[in-house]
Amino acid sequence: MPRVINPVEIDALEKETHKDYFDRHSPHIVCDNTAERGKKFKVKVLMGNDYTHPDDADHYISNIQLWNRETLIAQAQFSPGMMSNNPEHVEIDFYIVPKVSMNLSAMAVCTKHGLWQSESREVKVVD
Amino acid sequence: MPRVINPVEIDALEKETHKDYFDRHSPHIVCDNTAERGKKFKVKVLMGNDYTHPDDADHYISNIQLWNRETLIAQAQFSPGMMSNNPEHVEIDFYIVPKVSMNLSAMAVCTKHGLWQSESREVKVVD
Amino acid sequence: MPRVINPVEIDALEKETHKDYFDRHSPHIVCDNTAERGKKFKVKVLMGNDYTHPDDADHYISNIQLWNRETLIAQAQFSPGMMSNNPEHVEIDFYIVPKVSMNLSAMAVCTKHGLWQSESREVKVVD
Amino acid sequence: MPRVINPVEIDALEKETHKDYFDRHSPHIVCDNTAERGKKFKVKVLMGNDYTHPDDADHYISNIQLWNRETLIAQAQFSPGMMSNNPEHVEIDFYIVPKVSMNLSAMAVCTKHGLWQSESREVKVVD
Repeated sequence: MPRVINPVEIDALEKETHKDYFDRHSPHIVCDNTAERGKKFKVKVLMGNDYTHPDDADHYISNIQLWNRETLIAQAQFSPGMMSNNPEHVEIDFYIVPKVSMNLSAMAVCTKHGLWQSESREVKVVD
Repeated sequence: MPRVINPVEIDALEKETHKDYFDRHSPHIVCDNTAERGKKFKVKVLMGNDYTHPDDADHYISNIQLWNRETLIAQAQFSPGMMSNNPEHVEIDFYIVPKVSMNLSAMAVCTKHGLWQSESREVKVVD
Repeated sequence: MPRVINPVEIDALEKETHKDYFDRHSPHIVCDNTAERGKKFKVKVLMGNDYTHPDDADHYISNIQLWNRETLIAQAQFSPGMMSNNPEHVEIDFYIVPKVSMNLSAMAVCTKHGLWQSESREVKVVD
Repeated sequence: MPRVINPVEIDALEKETHKDYFDRHSPHIVCDNTAERGKKFKVKVLMGNDYTHPDDADHYISNIQLWNRETLIAQAQFSPGMMSNNPEHVEIDFYIVPKVSMNLSAMAVCTKHGLWQSESREVKVVD
């Protein structure tokens, strides 16, 4: 079964040694720390910080999922070549309307290297 | 088979009479008219202009697709309740890196009312 | 916007002239004409009758959808190379539990040639 | 982040105590142990052995994925109510054409209880 790679479980040394590999496969949640209850809230998911993932026909990010705790909120499916093999980060913005505080995370599927989790992101929902 | 509803084929009178129905089910492409070749380009897809679509368990927008001519670029799948039944437009931002000029369009699936197309959007790609 | 190709609207002559093109892109519903109410019912969707569709990295069937009238029941997303470029029909079996009579149809996305509809299939649901 | 639940890591006592919960959320691969190289090969994914999962609007299996080692082969998205809340196992058949021996597994998304992995299934590919 695919190894589900998440940032908390990866050994620090392994992470340092294969820094580019881990970086380009790791989805990141980019959003504010606080959201207004019942208002539209933007959540960006971005692949990689310092390194970009290829977008080749046989090696690309095929899916990005946005989770709140155990609930899948939304999922995107990408065709290969969308980023045209250019050095650009794979990126998508979701918009949600939170009622209560959330613990967001993202998962990404690389067509060659399996399933990757982001770090969790606490979002406080206030009136 | 599902009627594929597109803005060009809908009769003007029908469109006026059921203005809210057509508006809230119609995806819209929101982006610049011109893109730089090989640079990241943001494409927003938004449901409805003046009316918002429900986000109930049995009646919600389950999918939004982004097309360039005959090519499906990306597709999003939404869980019900993502917008929490609030009066907010369903919305998503895709990022693509164009090489040549594009003719973008979007399709949306409503779980009760079938498959909807947006108007086409020409995007000129320049150096 | 993508032309939505459905078997009813295609001109007979065009269909004959480009027989292989139309055949390999057309999804077909394969199921019984009658279903038992509340019992599991198998619905196969098959691409092409006499011709098989390529499964290359840049030209493959990326999605198959199953519809009942205006309702999307299920959708499959395929990775390229699943059929390994072999001369095999792309195929999937869904299982549904009908309550009332259905009008089933399928849609398929080819990564090069857009969106295709199957013929509709009436299924009578009996006790 | 969602706990990824896989059958190898679950404690035996926990598994026994919450037998119905674990059973109905666990996807199972049903296929032959041996496949012919270059021939179509059927792989069924089935949710639960002894217990069936609900198919309610707010609690249903929204996705089933088929993996070969680290590669996502195909993914299905389901609408709620497909099984009509009946006591039937969620089920789907994929067809693949293997070239070399495979290690298949499935993942399933429950809209309330996260992400579940099946046991792995070795399939020997012979001429």
